[in-house]
Amino acid sequence: MRAPQSNLPQSTAEILARVRERSPRVHCITNAVAQAFTANVLLAFGATPSMTIAPEEVGAFVAGADALLVNLGTFDAERRSAIGVAVDAASRTVPWVLDPVFIDRSPARAEYARSLVVRSPAAVRLNATEFAALAGAPAAAETLASYARDRHTIVGLTGATDVVTDGARRAQIGNGHVLMRRVTAMGCAGSALVAACIAVEPDHWLATAAGLLALGVAGEIAAERARGPGSLSIEIIDVLHA
Amino acid sequence: MRAPQSNLPQSTAEILARVRERSPRVHCITNAVAQAFTANVLLAFGATPSMTIAPEEVGAFVAGADALLVNLGTFDAERRSAIGVAVDAASRTVPWVLDPVFIDRSPARAEYARSLVVRSPAAVRLNATEFAALAGAPAAAETLASYARDRHTIVGLTGATDVVTDGARRAQIGNGHVLMRRVTAMGCAGSALVAACIAVEPDHWLATAAGLLALGVAGEIAAERARGPGSLSIEIIDVLHA
Amino acid sequence: MRAPQSNLPQSTAEILARVRERSPRVHCITNAVAQAFTANVLLAFGATPSMTIAPEEVGAFVAGADALLVNLGTFDAERRSAIGVAVDAASRTVPWVLDPVFIDRSPARAEYARSLVVRSPAAVRLNATEFAALAGAPAAAETLASYARDRHTIVGLTGATDVVTDGARRAQIGNGHVLMRRVTAMGCAGSALVAACIAVEPDHWLATAAGLLALGVAGEIAAERARGPGSLSIEIIDVLHA
Repeated sequence: MRAPQSNLPQSTAEILARVRERSPRVHCITNAVAQAFTANVLLAFGATPSMTIAPEEVGAFVAGADALLVNLGTFDAERRSAIGVAVDAASRTVPWVLDPVFIDRSPARAEYARSLVVRSPAAVRLNATEFAALAGAPAAAETLASYARDRHTIVGLTGATDVVTDGARRAQIGNGHVLMRRVTAMGCAGSALVAACIAVEPDHWLATAAGLLALGVAGEIAAERARGPGSLSIEIIDVLHA
Repeated sequence: MRAPQSNLPQSTAEILARVRERSPRVHCITNAVAQAFTANVLLAFGATPSMTIAPEEVGAFVAGADALLVNLGTFDAERRSAIGVAVDAASRTVPWVLDPVFIDRSPARAEYARSLVVRSPAAVRLNATEFAALAGAPAAAETLASYARDRHTIVGLTGATDVVTDGARRAQIGNGHVLMRRVTAMGCAGSALVAACIAVEPDHWLATAAGLLALGVAGEIAAERARGPGSLSIEIIDVLHA
Repeated sequence: MRAPQSNLPQSTAEILARVRERSPRVHCITNAVAQAFTANVLLAFGATPSMTIAPEEVGAFVAGADALLVNLGTFDAERRSAIGVAVDAASRTVPWVLDPVFIDRSPARAEYARSLVVRSPAAVRLNATEFAALAGAPAAAETLASYARDRHTIVGLTGATDVVTDGARRAQIGNGHVLMRRVTAMGCAGSALVAACIAVEPDHWLATAAGLLALGVAGEIAAERARGPGSLSIEIIDVLHA
C-alpha cells in the first residue's frame, strides 16, 4: 500500500485553484439542517451550489452539474424520490458523493445507503460509526481498504484522524479542531467540498483527500480566531474563501 | 405559592454541568427556519441534536433519545404525521416539550396544539399571545398556574420577564436582552434548551427554569459583545459553549 | 423616461423609517436554503416575517400580512400548492413580490413563473439570466421597460448595477459589493426587503428601488468590516439593524 502523503498539500493547492478557476456546479440533495451552511461553504470555496429536491426538475439540474452530493440526513419521501432521479441522471457522467448521515441510528437508512453504494458513487464520506453500520464491520484499516476496493469507490472516513483510501492508496489527515464537532453540518460541508474537488479532479482518491484536507486546515485556522462554535462556523467560511 | 428563586442560579449551574457530562440526545421536530440554529445551540450547550421528521424512522430516533422537542412552527402534513409517531414513541418514558409557535395566527394550529397538551408534555414553552390562544384566557399569574396544575405540566412563559410555573411553584426570570427578539428562532432555541435540561433533571419545573435562565444570561453576555442581531446570534452560541 | 435618482436616497430613508415604525408583516414562501437568513434580514430591517408553507393555513397568514414574497428557489409540490393559495389570498389587497430563482435552469420553473406574472405581482426581482428566461429576450433597457409596462409591474433587475423600472421611470443602483455574490440567499434577502418596502409604500417603483438600495448600501458597509463571505453575512444583518 503506497502512502504518497508528501504530495498531498501541493496536489490540494492545485485542485483548489482549479475549483476557483472553473467554479464547478455541485448539486446537493442534502438535509434541511445543512442546506444553508453547505451552500455558503461551497460558495466560499469557489464552487456554485444548487439545491433543488423537486423530483420533476432534479434530473435537469444534475445532468448539467459537475458533481452531485447525496446526503441522507433528512430521510423524507420527497428526498428519497429525488435521490433516485438524481443518481439516474448522474449515471456515469456526473461523479457523485454519498454521505450516509446517521445510518447507525436507523436500519431503514442503512439499508437504503447500501442500495446506493451499488450505484457507483465516486466516494463515500462518513464517520466510523456510520461505516460500521454500512459495512457490517468495524472501521479498521483493512476493512476500509477492502470495502473501497470491492465497490470501486473511495472511502473518506472522518474522525480525529481522517483516512482516505481507494483500496490501494491510503492518506491520513490529522488536521482539524475538536470544536468543529460542535458545529452542525460540519461533516456535511466536508462531503460538499469533496464533491467540488471530484468535479475538477479525475483521481477521486486525491480529490477526496484534498477536500477533507482543505476543511481540516480551514478549521484549524478558524479555531485560532474563534471564541466558540458560533464564531467558528463563520470564520471557517471566511478562511475557505481566503 | 413558594418562590425558591434564590436556589435557581445554583441549580441551573448543576443542571448545565450534567448536560455537559451526559450529552443527552434531544430529538427535535422543529420548523425549517429554526433547524440549523437549534442544532447549533444544542451542540454548544453540550447536548446532541437529531432532527429527522421522516415518519418511517422518527419513532426509532425518539425511542433512543433522552428528550423530545415538538415545535409547531412549520405545520406541514409530514411534520404532523411525524409528531404523532414521535409522541407515541415518547409515551411516558421520554419527556417532551411543546412549543406551540404562532398558534395565535391560525385556528388549525391552536386546535392541534390543544390536542397535543392532552398527551402529557413535560413542559409547554410559549409567549403570552400563544398562551392566550392555547388556554382561551389571558396569561395572568393565576391562569398560568391553574393551566399547569390542571394539565400536570410546566408552563414556561417567555417575554420581558419569563414565568415558569407548575401550578404550585413559580420562578420569574428577568434576564435576557431586547435584541434577542430580532433573531429568528430564539424562542425555539429556548425550548430546545429546556428539553436538554429536562433530559437530565427529573424536576421539570426546575429544568424548565434552568433552560430559560441559561438562555437569558447567555443573551445578556452576548448582547454586550454584539453590534446587532447578526453578531448576537453568533455570540450567543459562543457564550452557551463557554 | 424620467430618472429622478436624486431623490432616491431620501425617499429610501423615509421608507425605511416607516418600516421600522410599522413593522409590517411579510409572509415569505421561500426556499429552504434561504428561510433563516431571510427571516433574520427582515427582523433586522424592522419587519416581522412569517414563513409557513402549509396549504391549510397559508391563506390565513397571507390575508393578515402586509406583503407577500413568493420565491421559487425550492420548487416542491407543497410549495407550489401553497403559492396558489397564497396568491389567491393576496388578490389585490396584499401586494406581492415574485423572485423567480434559477428559472433559467429549469423549463418547468420558467413556465410556472410566467403563469405567476399574469397574476399581478407588484414587483419581480431577478437577475439578467432569469429575466431572459422569463421574458424570452435579453435584459436590455428597452426590454425591461416594455416588460414592466405591459405587465403593469415593477422589474427589479439585480447585478453589478441594479435597474428598477416601471416602464416609464428607471432607477440605477450601483451600490453593493462583489463579496455579496458569495453568500447564499443574498438575492432572496433583497426580494424580502423589497416586499417589506412595498408593504409601506404605495409607489411600488420607489419601494422596489428603496429595498435594493438599502441592501446595496448595507452590503458596502458590511464588506468594509468583513473578512470573507461568512462574516459578511453576519455584518450585513447588523448593519441593516443599525
